[in-house]
Amino acid sequence: MMADKLNVTPLHDRVIVKPAPAEEKTSSGLIIPDTAKEKPQRGTVVAAGPGKKDEPVTVKEGDTVLYGKYAGTEIQIDGNDYLIMRESDILAIV
Amino acid sequence: MMADKLNVTPLHDRVIVKPAPAEEKTSSGLIIPDTAKEKPQRGTVVAAGPGKKDEPVTVKEGDTVLYGKYAGTEIQIDGNDYLIMRESDILAIV
Amino acid sequence: MMADKLNVTPLHDRVIVKPAPAEEKTSSGLIIPDTAKEKPQRGTVVAAGPGKKDEPVTVKEGDTVLYGKYAGTEIQIDGNDYLIMRESDILAIV
Amino acid sequence: MMADKLNVTPLHDRVIVKPAPAEEKTSSGLIIPDTAKEKPQRGTVVAAGPGKKDEPVTVKEGDTVLYGKYAGTEIQIDGNDYLIMRESDILAIV
Amino acid sequence: MMADKLNVTPLHDRVIVKPAPAEEKTSSGLIIPDTAKEKPQRGTVVAAGPGKKDEPVTVKEGDTVLYGKYAGTEIQIDGNDYLIMRESDILAIV
Amino acid sequence: MMADKLNVTPLHDRVIVKPAPAEEKTSSGLIIPDTAKEKPQRGTVVAAGPGKKDEPVTVKEGDTVLYGKYAGTEIQIDGNDYLIMRESDILAIV
Amino acid sequence: MMADKLNVTPLHDRVIVKPAPAEEKTSSGLIIPDTAKEKPQRGTVVAAGPGKKDEPVTVKEGDTVLYGKYAGTEIQIDGNDYLIMRESDILAIV
Repeated sequence: MMADKLNVTPLHDRVIVKPAPAEEKTSSGLIIPDTAKEKPQRGTVVAAGPGKKDEPVTVKEGDTVLYGKYAGTEIQIDGNDYLIMRESDILAIV
Repeated sequence: MMADKLNVTPLHDRVIVKPAPAEEKTSSGLIIPDTAKEKPQRGTVVAAGPGKKDEPVTVKEGDTVLYGKYAGTEIQIDGNDYLIMRESDILAIV
Repeated sequence: MMADKLNVTPLHDRVIVKPAPAEEKTSSGLIIPDTAKEKPQRGTVVAAGPGKKDEPVTVKEGDTVLYGKYAGTEIQIDGNDYLIMRESDILAIV
Repeated sequence: MMADKLNVTPLHDRVIVKPAPAEEKTSSGLIIPDTAKEKPQRGTVVAAGPGKKDEPVTVKEGDTVLYGKYAGTEIQIDGNDYLIMRESDILAIV
Repeated sequence: MMADKLNVTPLHDRVIVKPAPAEEKTSSGLIIPDTAKEKPQRGTVVAAGPGKKDEPVTVKEGDTVLYGKYAGTEIQIDGNDYLIMRESDILAIV
Repeated sequence: MMADKLNVTPLHDRVIVKPAPAEEKTSSGLIIPDTAKEKPQRGTVVAAGPGKKDEPVTVKEGDTVLYGKYAGTEIQIDGNDYLIMRESDILAIV
Repeated sequence: MMADKLNVTPLHDRVIVKPAPAEEKTSSGLIIPDTAKEKPQRGTVVAAGPGKKDEPVTVKEGDTVLYGKYAGTEIQIDGNDYLIMRESDILAIV
């Protein structure tokens, strides 16, 4: 689960996340609940913006994060699907 | 009713809560009202974020808390169900 | 109309109120209007949170208060019904 | 049109108003328009809260005030009907 | 088109306006558009509140003003119809 | 495309705009898209308010501006149609 | 993919973007996902406003940007289609 290096700079407090495949299981044993199988709620941060004034972004490239099921906008880079979301859509670092 | 130790760090003012089984009764005699039986409104804090700027989180790991019936997002870790919510969704410490 | 002593600590600006029985009449002669008979709008504060930053809570344990008909969330402790609400849902002290 | 003395303390910026009878006419000749006959829009302040931080309440006990037709919550004290509203619901002093 | 002298004090940033008759034409030739004929959008300020903290009211008694078609609340004083509105509902002085 | 001189003073951050005829073409070749033909999105500023506290208005009399299709309120002066809108409804100066 | 030089000055934090043709592929291999084919989500900044007070705009003329599928208002200049949007509608620079 390496973070991809992207040539994309998110603006302000936005973060680009590579969603994890739906069946995967982390070392801490985290499993996505059944009702979320179609669309994973876990992913890896591949790029993070500089944050807003006086509020730098907390997550960094490589962090595995949990996010709400409907968070973000889908974009596709080099044939891979990513989500671009605000950091406030990220729930936790796992 | 021990708090589980999780390898998850909530962001900002988010808190991870392990919901109590619906029928349980605390030492202070608190009972969940009938209309809430399907989904408990009481649980134990298992992880709390650092809070927002100038507003550290008040609850801490191990606290038994009351929260609104529709508070939080369900996540599953090691086969257990948790809720991740903002601290403002927590009503009281019991 | 004694305030019950509860083993519950409301968070922030939340207040726990024990609703008065619907037919009761206070010493100042306050009567709940007919349209509100099913659900009393008067009660006794049994626990109050510490307030928000720079805004301590005004009501205190034992105060008889008026509150909006749909204010608060019902909780049950030791077989009694309480309401937990924000202080801003309280209209007046009687 | 004397202000009643009530044993009720409104919280924050709330004000208790005794609505004037619908047909009444003030010394300045103010008449409630026809479409508002069922529910008067004029009344006398009988109690005012201390105001919000840095914003003391402007109206005082005894002021005759105009307020929006749907302003406030009805309460009944000693058999009389009152309205409890925020000061921002009061339009003018007459 | 003289401003009436009213014995009413608007609160905060509220303004009392006497609507102009629908067919009237000002010296600058302003005409109310057809779709607004039933309810004039022009009137004369007859009373203005003191404004909000650090924001005194700009209009003054006697100003002819334009306002949105649905601005304000109708009140009747001495048999005349007035509108009481916030200054922010006033578009321009003509 | 001369700006008309109006005897109207917009309040605060409001601006009066004379909409351009729908078919017109500016020197920079700007054409209104087909879907906006019925209601032009371009016009000339004929009067601008003083702005809000610490935020003077940017546009000035004579500027040709682009604005959203549903921006502003229609008014009629001397038989001509104008729009009165907030400066924030103006998209660009052309 | 040269940025056009436009004779249009966006106000405040607005930005004019020339949308990229739907099938194009950038040097970094970014492809618009299938569901967005009708309306590209990538474009080139052709003009940027000065920003809001204390918040200068981050993007500059010539930047290739990603933006939400429904961002902005369509305008047509010299026969070309552009979008004018707030900078907050821009997700990332690619």
